[in-house]
Parts: sequence; structure tokens; C-alpha cells
Amino acid sequence: MYRIDLNCDMGESFGVYRMGNDEEILNYVTSANIACGFHAGDPSTMRKTVQLALEKGVSIGAHPGLPDLIGFGRRNMAITPEEVYDLVVYQVGALYGFVKAAGGKMQHVKPHGALYNMAAKDSALSEAIAKAVYDIDSSLVLFGLAGSELIKAGDRIGLKTANEVFSDRTYEQDGSLTPRHKPNALIHEEQEAIQQVVRMVKEGKVRSQQGTDVEIQADTICIHGDGVHALTFAEKIFEALKKEGIVITSLF
Amino acid sequence: MYRIDLNCDMGESFGVYRMGNDEEILNYVTSANIACGFHAGDPSTMRKTVQLALEKGVSIGAHPGLPDLIGFGRRNMAITPEEVYDLVVYQVGALYGFVKAAGGKMQHVKPHGALYNMAAKDSALSEAIAKAVYDIDSSLVLFGLAGSELIKAGDRIGLKTANEVFSDRTYEQDGSLTPRHKPNALIHEEQEAIQQVVRMVKEGKVRSQQGTDVEIQADTICIHGDGVHALTFAEKIFEALKKEGIVITSLF
Amino acid sequence: MYRIDLNCDMGESFGVYRMGNDEEILNYVTSANIACGFHAGDPSTMRKTVQLALEKGVSIGAHPGLPDLIGFGRRNMAITPEEVYDLVVYQVGALYGFVKAAGGKMQHVKPHGALYNMAAKDSALSEAIAKAVYDIDSSLVLFGLAGSELIKAGDRIGLKTANEVFSDRTYEQDGSLTPRHKPNALIHEEQEAIQQVVRMVKEGKVRSQQGTDVEIQADTICIHGDGVHALTFAEKIFEALKKEGIVITSLF
Amino acid sequence: MYRIDLNCDMGESFGVYRMGNDEEILNYVTSANIACGFHAGDPSTMRKTVQLALEKGVSIGAHPGLPDLIGFGRRNMAITPEEVYDLVVYQVGALYGFVKAAGGKMQHVKPHGALYNMAAKDSALSEAIAKAVYDIDSSLVLFGLAGSELIKAGDRIGLKTANEVFSDRTYEQDGSLTPRHKPNALIHEEQEAIQQVVRMVKEGKVRSQQGTDVEIQADTICIHGDGVHALTFAEKIFEALKKEGIVITSLF
Repeated sequence: MYRIDLNCDMGESFGVYRMGNDEEILNYVTSANIACGFHAGDPSTMRKTVQLALEKGVSIGAHPGLPDLIGFGRRNMAITPEEVYDLVVYQVGALYGFVKAAGGKMQHVKPHGALYNMAAKDSALSEAIAKAVYDIDSSLVLFGLAGSELIKAGDRIGLKTANEVFSDRTYEQDGSLTPRHKPNALIHEEQEAIQQVVRMVKEGKVRSQQGTDVEIQADTICIHGDGVHALTFAEKIFEALKKEGIVITSLF
Repeated sequence: MYRIDLNCDMGESFGVYRMGNDEEILNYVTSANIACGFHAGDPSTMRKTVQLALEKGVSIGAHPGLPDLIGFGRRNMAITPEEVYDLVVYQVGALYGFVKAAGGKMQHVKPHGALYNMAAKDSALSEAIAKAVYDIDSSLVLFGLAGSELIKAGDRIGLKTANEVFSDRTYEQDGSLTPRHKPNALIHEEQEAIQQVVRMVKEGKVRSQQGTDVEIQADTICIHGDGVHALTFAEKIFEALKKEGIVITSLF
Repeated sequence: MYRIDLNCDMGESFGVYRMGNDEEILNYVTSANIACGFHAGDPSTMRKTVQLALEKGVSIGAHPGLPDLIGFGRRNMAITPEEVYDLVVYQVGALYGFVKAAGGKMQHVKPHGALYNMAAKDSALSEAIAKAVYDIDSSLVLFGLAGSELIKAGDRIGLKTANEVFSDRTYEQDGSLTPRHKPNALIHEEQEAIQQVVRMVKEGKVRSQQGTDVEIQADTICIHGDGVHALTFAEKIFEALKKEGIVITSLF
Repeated sequence: MYRIDLNCDMGESFGVYRMGNDEEILNYVTSANIACGFHAGDPSTMRKTVQLALEKGVSIGAHPGLPDLIGFGRRNMAITPEEVYDLVVYQVGALYGFVKAAGGKMQHVKPHGALYNMAAKDSALSEAIAKAVYDIDSSLVLFGLAGSELIKAGDRIGLKTANEVFSDRTYEQDGSLTPRHKPNALIHEEQEAIQQVVRMVKEGKVRSQQGTDVEIQADTICIHGDGVHALTFAEKIFEALKKEGIVITSLF
């Protein structure tokens, strides 16, 4: 039996500013990565998003980011492992408060944006993140780019890990994502995107930009929650996976 | 046997900016109120302060404030009970993360500055704070101005509460603090300050500005950690209380 | 000949968050109040909004607010006149930089949200705002609620002032706006809203909630830029005023 | 006749947090670089620091930094030239407001910390900074590391520039500063530091870590304002330069 988790970033509204279709997208995902106030989100949004996820039975995760609200946490920063440890503990703790207050349970942690990307390649930052998560609650699952340094750091410290794959991004022959500034970095064709993830789940392989097959472990698929077509694509991928007999379920 | 808790605000440094004498003052207090990043403090300062308190065996509390770094959380804001609930859960949760990561236990929550003062008189805000604390962990102790709305709200919801008294502030005949803008609001004479707290602890009474005795429950005394004389005064009050046979110990 | 200015708050996007229909609404207004980063807006949004206004030939004003991004500057704060002076100078200066860099000229300053409302009734805050504007550039026009303390403070210090009226708000017999929490505070009927402003412009009068006519000076009308119907209503009011023979033009 | 400018970063206090000895150090410098609120400083501190500089007759400059208050603007960020342009215009404009309100005149702009260091080597960022300064006021002087990309960009666009040298840092044979993480990056011996700057001013040369002489243009010397010995060292370097017959004066 094949099984897969679908995760989506959410709770990214801020003050009067709205972002995403959280309520609707929660119908198609099994794990929710909730922003914690550094790159997006605010206390009230966090409370409401936790509540929504609990009502829909979707597993809850913290989505800590760099302290860069204007840049939405997408700009790399020269940050030390110690600083990363501290900002992960802070943000995971803050969301932990809302989950605990709502009588729920936190499932996972997935770093956001530039923090996710830097951690994928930097073992010192990854170890700091993994240690922060482990120190708060060693039963939490660490989400990271499939095969990345973050997954390795999580495995080393003894955390459960979830290898994340992307339906709409192409891959290089070393298993990394094709950088966004390169042509063909994005898959715009929906059927192609769906076939890519189905193959990753069923065969553990993806066809790289260099034409070779690369082994890849797919534990969870990243679904985008923002933009006009996000919702319809989420529904399509959800239905396609079900039709392929793949069980869509949260982890562990 | 008389007993009293001594508490002090700390962890109020921010980034490169230093404030207070946390390491030294921890020798004289039994409860540490640690800033959570909204009015002061930052993730690294929080981690270090939690570590220091654990090393010194001082009980740890969260010290949530209004989102006003420039104003140090001292400026009243027109904030709804729901917003207060959310910012208390967020900040207590964030500190909870550091305490949990360090293998410690959180004892209490004490609102800071304008939030503390507004809550003292506003039952709706107080209920929001008490509910936030209770929802996160019903075994936490809620610190508030002795006899205030905050203490009443904590009692109503079923939290343990600690009535806070001040050595260097004078009182009105209704048990409230003399507002700072009035003459005689502050006690500058050290012996007078010490006698006031000793009497509050032993007799449960304080002489008001109107010349009458007012009943007051003293569970914890606020010690100031900042300023040139903070440390020597902390030591003096600590020694004076011991000499009076009062046991200085954290709560519950 | 009757003349009126139409103003609209804009540049309220922040980072990745979008707000308002600035580009379209600029076709129907003559004065743009541009957010300066404290309650909304960011440096890039400010630059782009200044550029848009210059292209459309719309007069530019600074729209300083309280330092409360999460609350969108709508929550009252206990702030001193000196603090208000400083935050107005800071924000007006910041926008001044963008206007100067683009080769434009700043026409006016209109405080935002809670700052606008507090200033309307508080002469000390109003004097601080008027002095800040005057000190930076005594040729700037100060926008404030018609007949309010802010207008009076501007007049006293020697600034040109613009009395602002609202099409969709009702008035009390003392000329103040009906508070939002009261029934009938808002005019939902478009024709009624349009007739109210036409009468204010032509007759200098508005019918109060108490049924009496109140004298009111209308130099500029506040047009809302956000929400589904903002654009169509802006167009309607624009056309209605033109049809009445009222010249729509910026001030001075 | 030899002449040199002495500059110092100041106005770096924030809210209740104090930093530096601005009032005293102003007795020994001729140019003040005033923080603008992104890495340090706040509106009230800016106003007071401008006032102090005017009273002491010290030339005023803006000291814009990266939006990183917790990191004091010392952490590199992946920021685009356009974003840099915008944040420089914003911050220079904000200080411009205070200088204009106080009836003064702004002399220069010196980027802070990571922004200064990144610009020294990155011509695109340097051009963005130079253009921002030029667009606001083409008579402003741009301060940058002697011989760096920032100086070149300022020269190209037609700004007056000031090559900055350091008394307490050592140099490489290509004229760059020895990176801080290397041994001998800092000069701890006061006499050695003083001799280095005297030689840079009089001979236009500095002995590099590789033992060779490097040509260097010294228009302004950076004096540190923070730390225990800052004030006494400022006084010593001031006196030493005077004794050497070097005229200490602000630029142009």
C-alpha cells in the first residue's frame, strides 16, 4: 500500500492583511504548517488557524521563519546556528502555546522559505534546527527537503523525519531542486506535475533535468495554498492520488 | 511562620542592548519574570535567562507585555480581551519552549507594565489573561497586583494566584497604588520601604496615604532589577526579611 | 463656483501583502494619502505609490500612523505629544525622501486611524502634529476632521488646512461623526451618501442624527480605496459631483 | 596643509535602551552618523541626536542600515539593489525630516554595518545606494570604505565622496581591511593605531599585513563611540592629530 501526506503552508495572514485560502485548502491536506509570526502570521491568526485545523482533523505543525516580515522570510540572512536554534525554539514554543490552549497536539515542524533552503544545504544550521525541535519535544516530526541536510540532521538526533517533495518543481540529477532562476524550474502543466508526484510516491524516482532517473523518498508533498489556482490544483492532485490507490494520510 | 516570595523582572536585554543585572539579582530573588520579546527580550536573551534561573534554582515565570518595543510596553493601548488572550498565549508559549528545551518547569505568569496596570482595573482584560494562562497550563500561578481584578479573575477560573506588593510604592486607602504622577507615590527611604513590606508580610496591613490602615495580602514582593541601587537594595531587603524570621521561598 | 478635493488613503500594501486598488482609484481622486510604514506600507510600496500618483497627476500627502502594524494603526495608544511630534517628523520625512527622489512635491499630511481620531479631540496631540508638519515644511497642508482640534491647531500655527468630510458617515449635532458602535453610524445607501456630500459642498451644511442642520466646512472628501465596492463608489461620487457642477481639484 | 574629518556612529540608543556617549564624543568629532531606526535609533533619539550635533557644530549624516534591529544591522542579508535603494531613501528621508525641522542641513550619508560591508564589494548594491543619495539630494557626501566599490559608485554618479579609514583595523595588500576573524585584524596598541592614521593622512600610505605599503586615501577617520575606552581614545587621537599639525574639520 502506498501512502502519502499532503502539507500546506498556512496561517500566513497578518493583521488586516489576508493571504491564502486556509479554510478551503484544509479539505485537501493532511498536515498544516502554521506561520509563527516572524515571516508571517500573528497571534490571532495563529489561534484561528490552529482551531480550523483541529476542526478539519488536519495535523498541526509549526512553520518557523527568519525574522523578516517585509521579505516574507524569503531573503537569506547570515545567521548563526545558535541564533537559528533560538528563533526555532521561540516560534515553535509560541505555536505550542496555541495548540496546547486548544487542547490539541503538535505533529511536526517545517522551516519556512530561506530558512528551509539554507538548512537544506548547511549541516550546522540543520543541526541547530533539529536540536531545537528535539529539545522541545522529541516526538515531533521534522519536515525537510527530501534527502537534504535537514533530513539527515533530524535522523542523526533521533527525530522522526518527513522527506518533502514538490509536484510543480523540477529536479537536478543530484536530487536537488532546479534553482528558480533557471528555465524549466517550474512545472506549469498540471498533468505533468501530477504524474511526477505519483511516480515519486509509487516508484521512489523522479526524472531529472539531465534526463536521468534519481532516487527520491516521498513522505509528504508540498501543496501551495496561495494564488488563484491553488485550490483547484489541490483538489486535482488529491483526487489523482486517491484514484491511483495512494492513501492520503498524515504521518505516524 | 511567615513566608514570602521575592520576584524580579528580567531578561529585558534586547539584541546588543543590555539591561539589568540579572545574574547578580538572581541571588536575592525566588521568582524570575522573564520578558518574552514584545516589550523587551529576544529569543537568545530568553534562552540565556532561563538557563541562568535554572542554575540559580530560581522559579521561572513568563512576563508577557504589549507589542510596543519602543515604549517598553509601558504605554496603554486600546486592546480587546481577545487580542490580549492571543498575545498572552503567544508569549507564554514562546517562553514555555525555552523552559521545556532546557528541561525546566514554568511556575508562573506576570503581565508587564501597561498590561499589568490595565488588567488590575479591567475585569474583561483580566479574564482574558487568566483564561490564556489556564488554557496553556492550569497549574501555573498568576501574579497580579494584590487585591486587583487580575487576582480575582485568576481565582475565579481556578488558577493559583500570587498577590504582589511593592516596597517602594505607597498605597491609597482603597488598596490601590498611589499613581506615579502624585507626590509621595514613591518611597525613597530604604528603611521605610523595608518596614512597609515587613508589616505587609507579618500583619497583612499597610498604612495608606490617607493615614488609615488597609488590609493587604502579600504573597510576593516586586524587586527592581534595573538602576544603580537595585542590587544593593535587593540585598538589603533580602537580609532584612531573613532577620525578621520570614522565610524567603518561591510559591507552592 | 464650488470646488472640492477628493482624497484617498493608499500605499497600504506591505511586503507580499496587497491592499487597495491604488492604480484604479487614482483616476477618481485628487489627493493621495500615502502610508509611511508604521501602520502600513513599506519602503518599496512607498516608492511605487509616489510614482503612480505622479504619473496620474494626483497630489501627494504623507499619511503617518501609530507604530502598530498588527493593529493597522487603529488602536488608540497612550502617547505623549512629544512622541507624536517625533513619529510624525519621522514618517513625513521618510515619504519626503521618496517624493524628492522622484522629483515631485509633497502637498499635505493627513494623520491615520487612531492618530487622526485622537488628534480630532485632543489639542495637545494636535498641536504636536501641526508643529511637526510646520517645522518640516510650513507650506504643507494639514488635513483633519472638519472643525476638529487638528484643524484648529493647524490654523493657529499658520498652516493651510483642509477640512475633511465623509460621504458614508453620519454626523452628530455638534458636528462630530457618529461613533461607529452606534446604529446609523454608516450610510449604506449610495444616493444618500452622495446627496450628503453634495449638500456639504454646496450649502456647508449636514443634517445631524438629531434632525438639526449643522454647519460644516468641506474642503476635501474622504474616498475609501479598499473593499469590493470602493472603486465603483469612487466613480459614482466623482461623476455625481461633476454633474452638480462642482470642480474636483486638489487644494491651493 | 593636511586636513581630516573625524566621524562617529551615534544616535544608536533605542527606546529605554542606552548606547554610546554621544554628548561627550561630539566634542572630538566633526561628522556624526546618525542611526535611522532600522538597525538602531528611534524617532525621539534621532531628534535629540540631531539637536546635540547642531549645538556642538558637528556635521550631520544619515546612517542607514539593514532592517534588523535584533542583529543591530550586522548580519548580511540577500537584498536586491532595488530594495537597498528603497531602504536608503526611506531612512535618509526620515533623518532629513528631523534635520529640516531643526533648521539644520544634512552633510552626508554613511551606510551601516552589513550594508556598508556588502556595498564595499558589490557594485550593484553600491550603485543603488549612490543613486538613492543622489536622487534625494545631489549635494550630499557619500561616505564609504577607502577605495571601495561604494566610493567608486559615488564618484561615477557625481556625488562628493569621502574615503573612510580605520585607526584600529589592519589592512591587506589590496587595500581591504583584514577580516575580523583573522589574527591581527585589530590594532590594540593605541600608539600604533595613532601612527597608522597619521601616516595615512600625511603620506597616503598604510603598511599592509603582508609587509608592503599600500596607497590609501584618507578623507575621514572612523571613531568608535561605544565601549569603555571609546571616549579616552577619541580624545587621544584628536590631540595627536592636532599635534601633527593636521586640521580636523568636516568635509567640503
